[in-house]
Amino acid sequence: MSDGKKPSPGEAQREFLARQRGNFDPAALLDGLRNGDRNSLARALTLVESDRLEHRQLARQVLEACLRDGSAETRHSSLRIGITGVPGVGKSTFIERLGMMLVNAGHRVGVMAVDPSSEKSGGSILGDKTRMEKLSAHDAAFIRPSPARGTLGGVADRTREHILLFEAAGYDIVLVETVGVGQSETAVHSMVDCFLLLLLPGAGDELQGIKRGIVEMADLLVVNKSDGDFEKRALETQRDYERALHLFPPTESGWVPPVLRCSSTIQYGMEKVLEQLLAFRDAMQAGGHFALRRQEQAGSWMHEAIRDGLSAGFYANSAIRRALAEEEFAVRAGAVHPLQAAERLLSLFRER
Amino acid sequence: MSDGKKPSPGEAQREFLARQRGNFDPAALLDGLRNGDRNSLARALTLVESDRLEHRQLARQVLEACLRDGSAETRHSSLRIGITGVPGVGKSTFIERLGMMLVNAGHRVGVMAVDPSSEKSGGSILGDKTRMEKLSAHDAAFIRPSPARGTLGGVADRTREHILLFEAAGYDIVLVETVGVGQSETAVHSMVDCFLLLLLPGAGDELQGIKRGIVEMADLLVVNKSDGDFEKRALETQRDYERALHLFPPTESGWVPPVLRCSSTIQYGMEKVLEQLLAFRDAMQAGGHFALRRQEQAGSWMHEAIRDGLSAGFYANSAIRRALAEEEFAVRAGAVHPLQAAERLLSLFRER
Repeated sequence: MSDGKKPSPGEAQREFLARQRGNFDPAALLDGLRNGDRNSLARALTLVESDRLEHRQLARQVLEACLRDGSAETRHSSLRIGITGVPGVGKSTFIERLGMMLVNAGHRVGVMAVDPSSEKSGGSILGDKTRMEKLSAHDAAFIRPSPARGTLGGVADRTREHILLFEAAGYDIVLVETVGVGQSETAVHSMVDCFLLLLLPGAGDELQGIKRGIVEMADLLVVNKSDGDFEKRALETQRDYERALHLFPPTESGWVPPVLRCSSTIQYGMEKVLEQLLAFRDAMQAGGHFALRRQEQAGSWMHEAIRDGLSAGFYANSAIRRALAEEEFAVRAGAVHPLQAAERLLSLFRER
Repeated sequence: MSDGKKPSPGEAQREFLARQRGNFDPAALLDGLRNGDRNSLARALTLVESDRLEHRQLARQVLEACLRDGSAETRHSSLRIGITGVPGVGKSTFIERLGMMLVNAGHRVGVMAVDPSSEKSGGSILGDKTRMEKLSAHDAAFIRPSPARGTLGGVADRTREHILLFEAAGYDIVLVETVGVGQSETAVHSMVDCFLLLLLPGAGDELQGIKRGIVEMADLLVVNKSDGDFEKRALETQRDYERALHLFPPTESGWVPPVLRCSSTIQYGMEKVLEQLLAFRDAMQAGGHFALRRQEQAGSWMHEAIRDGLSAGFYANSAIRRALAEEEFAVRAGAVHPLQAAERLLSLFRER
């Protein structure tokens, strides 16, 4: 095309594909990532989101390299934080403030943010333009919006991979936002070092839509919007949760989840939140729980992927699909023993 | 042997095997079960505990028949109750008293009791002879001790099958005791209609060994040993839990788990416990949650059995066993991507 002529459709397509391949060239991506190139990070994040087989293979190459060379340096200094709470609790403003404090303290902060347009009950009325305005403009921060399908579901694996990419690109703090209504929290809990639950003043009212078990998963509870008229209620909420948490079994590590109060809009109490986050990390690292939790997370990820792979092969089988509905109906109606149905289906699968 | 001669070893063995087969004759067992014959129930319970393939097949026949004919009558009137609490909370005495109240009210009560000799921290000092003395002597009750291996693990399926057998033998109340320290509660929760948590006065202290998440699973909380010097502390504990439970997400059915106080030794508060158990059942049945929960339990059991069967086939494979340890080590060390390891192992399995 150096002669200025318009390329033929075939040429254009070839050029497009070459550019695609170039964009996703593992070596180039890795180089970019290692040098902290934002564009490379963005492309790598997109690459691992792809379902195309060739992209998955390229993604693996990139991720394996990240695992190998990134590990020594970033892995042990990085902190992965899950942040959850119902829509309206003020997650974006909270993350904006916390993120700014972290970048001002010299950290590089990666954020996997929930796309507010896909949130159940709206979130910010002003829309996504004003979400994390300062943080998203900061050189040391990178915000990646991701769809909030109520549940993380199939994107859980990609979230774990995104964390690895952020770390390979030198982001030593990774914040993963979730909306708290589905299964996403269990998934996110299994991929972060610290799980932070944001609460509204006026304890309990907002928990209608939240998943059971989530309060007990939290390493840190923060009552947000502790300002103006809400301050008194926030204080009560804090005390209520402090009292309640003593009635629940302690964490394996012996960490007692603190209940804090803050207001991200008037910037009250945010230093304390940061302090406790770091105290949590230090305590976990000192006790060896930090590394152990990550090792276990990696191991379970492998076994989970194996089980998922086995199930996927089973349930995708056409003979199984034909027989399954009938067996399940009979089992639910109480006419067939669940183990008998399972065994029949399993031998059908083996005979295929 | 009618001629009085001592049988040859071969004859003795044949006779023994014939007796074995006779004992486990499905038709005879079923007849016995349907007529409420205790001996048949005992043998059926033993049969389903066996790991021998031929016994498993016989057990299936019995269980399928139970599912079919028992269903209409017993299934809808029966109530399966899981009872958990740490060793020392007084589970045996509680079950003895509750069981006696139930048989006196005309119910037939089956109990799957934890063998106290296998309990972690002793339980009753007096040993198992005094456990549930009155109840075990009652015609309308049947107590089956089962080993408490810390976790139910592989015996979970057998517990579900035991429940079916109890119901087929006309026991309309089935109590499943667990010790609250392992995974057994999640398993038991998935096979009962109602989950009751026994607590000690002096909230929280005893929860050191208990599994996290268990408090949120409870449909009914009962502070035991509310007598004498402990009464004041029991009252405080009751109030603390009542307050705490409001801070947690509501159950799917909308049921608010009540917190009660009782003393099974002085028989205080037991009527209230029974009343709330029945109120729970009535509320669940009225809302349709009762039948729905059982249908879902049966469906999940089937899918679980499928996943377990697939995993068992995978992990029993000799090529997999050889490769697994190395892959897992590399994954935990962060040298290999968990998905890559999983994929390598899965394709190794497919090529077998």
